[in-house]
Amino acid sequence: MVGMNVMRVFTITGSNPALLNCSSRILSSPVKSTKLGCLKTSTCSYTTSSHPFGKLLFRQLFEKESSTYTYLLADVTHPQKPALLIDPVDKTVERDLSLVKELGLKLIYAMNTHVHADHVTGTGIIKSKVPGVHSVISKASKSKADLLIEAGDKIYFGDLFLEVRPTPGHTLGCVTYVTGDGPNQPQPRMAFTGDALLIRGCGRTDFQGGSSQELYKSIFSLPKNTLIYPAHDYKGFTVSTVGEEMLYNPRLTKDQDTFKHIMENLNLPYPKMIDVAVPANMVCGLQDLSSKPVEAASN
Amino acid sequence: MVGMNVMRVFTITGSNPALLNCSSRILSSPVKSTKLGCLKTSTCSYTTSSHPFGKLLFRQLFEKESSTYTYLLADVTHPQKPALLIDPVDKTVERDLSLVKELGLKLIYAMNTHVHADHVTGTGIIKSKVPGVHSVISKASKSKADLLIEAGDKIYFGDLFLEVRPTPGHTLGCVTYVTGDGPNQPQPRMAFTGDALLIRGCGRTDFQGGSSQELYKSIFSLPKNTLIYPAHDYKGFTVSTVGEEMLYNPRLTKDQDTFKHIMENLNLPYPKMIDVAVPANMVCGLQDLSSKPVEAASN
Repeated sequence: MVGMNVMRVFTITGSNPALLNCSSRILSSPVKSTKLGCLKTSTCSYTTSSHPFGKLLFRQLFEKESSTYTYLLADVTHPQKPALLIDPVDKTVERDLSLVKELGLKLIYAMNTHVHADHVTGTGIIKSKVPGVHSVISKASKSKADLLIEAGDKIYFGDLFLEVRPTPGHTLGCVTYVTGDGPNQPQPRMAFTGDALLIRGCGRTDFQGGSSQELYKSIFSLPKNTLIYPAHDYKGFTVSTVGEEMLYNPRLTKDQDTFKHIMENLNLPYPKMIDVAVPANMVCGLQDLSSKPVEAASN
Repeated sequence: MVGMNVMRVFTITGSNPALLNCSSRILSSPVKSTKLGCLKTSTCSYTTSSHPFGKLLFRQLFEKESSTYTYLLADVTHPQKPALLIDPVDKTVERDLSLVKELGLKLIYAMNTHVHADHVTGTGIIKSKVPGVHSVISKASKSKADLLIEAGDKIYFGDLFLEVRPTPGHTLGCVTYVTGDGPNQPQPRMAFTGDALLIRGCGRTDFQGGSSQELYKSIFSLPKNTLIYPAHDYKGFTVSTVGEEMLYNPRLTKDQDTFKHIMENLNLPYPKMIDVAVPANMVCGLQDLSSKPVEAASN
């Protein structure tokens, strides 16, 4: 599987999904209580109709130390409930896998938007703990992973899929994963931008082959109403939209020369985790796990 | 307005909302770039069709020091885009009001689920900065606010509304705000539970008139598929569901006696902010603002 390049990478297509319906209780009395025991015996799945994104189950998860967002996506109408994690962090793998288990999901991909410099990806640990999970990163990142994706690739999980859009600038190999377009796909679309586009900001462009010119050109090629889910936020925002960032992003609303000047004069300190994180993330977090029984350890 | 008790509290009903449509560009080339200038001149509003909750614009915001979530809700199809904030924090008021302004919203309510003991509410500062905003808290909290709400009250913002459901236990006056039921209301419903129900946890019950018995009885009277948005999370979760908590909440899945025993033996330290936060929050954060030109300063 190492270095495999794919246009369609997941074979569970799961037509004719059976969407279960929960019968919601609308209480006339706001403090009417129900015994816990009978609620637990209900046969209604807690994952159905429990999310505003249609058949997509979606969870945004936060790692406080590095202010990193990890995203869990699953097709809960598919019998196997195939799921993927975007940008998992090593320190929160237990939390993420516990949630995957509780929700009854089958994790099939552990994906990275790019080679992170501020934390170690959880991909390697996940692969060691969950047989069958495949690591995913862009070919342009020059990293090792089970699946090396490129522009236009579609990553299927059940009937849902993510499109791959290169958004270089922060690093040469940055990609944005965008939910698919179509009647069964979530609307509005959702973009997992990594560090390329942050809420009211963007990733630094002075390391790892970054280029402010490339970032500037690539960043607004997404549809305007796309929901932006970045890899980090330091001010407590959880989501934005492309259109909102077009109007209010303090860097990317500048003309291209001004933007380039800003990015070249940020005078940011050397990233404290870069010398640990980048070597680890170039092999999808498998560097410390080589002596352990890791699936696809040939990475 | 002080102490006013209401069943319907907002008069802008805004029928016949004009839902603008954005024409999304679906790019065949994933790296096709668009000049920023022409994008900025678009007349398409960035708030329309940019959220998965129908006419509800919804933002979850995080205050890192106290791990508090603040929620911004607005009816963006109403001409005035009326909005409310649930559980704002004093330290992040500038961020919240800046977002309200950027999104073109009209803030009408600053609401609290209860008298917080771990941070000072932002309600007072908001009232001093935005004329016309009304503070909201439960009558049972015995606090001062412009609107003292009770069980069954509906708080309208445009065509959307929140229902008030008492969920005492953490404090005597805790309420949960639940989005309305109906064809124009967001589905699934969303519950802003304060500290009554946390994700895989619940608020402590050893201060401020708390009662583990009351919390236990009240907590699962919400519909099972209701999305849970708590006032805090310390592990990086952002949302859950009532059904999920019924299955996996480590405290609330216990029988009532065991739950009571757990809550009585948590041996938690005295809350470090309680002596500052509670007196301030009993007057909705207006304690330091009495000498300033605050609207409704008679609170």
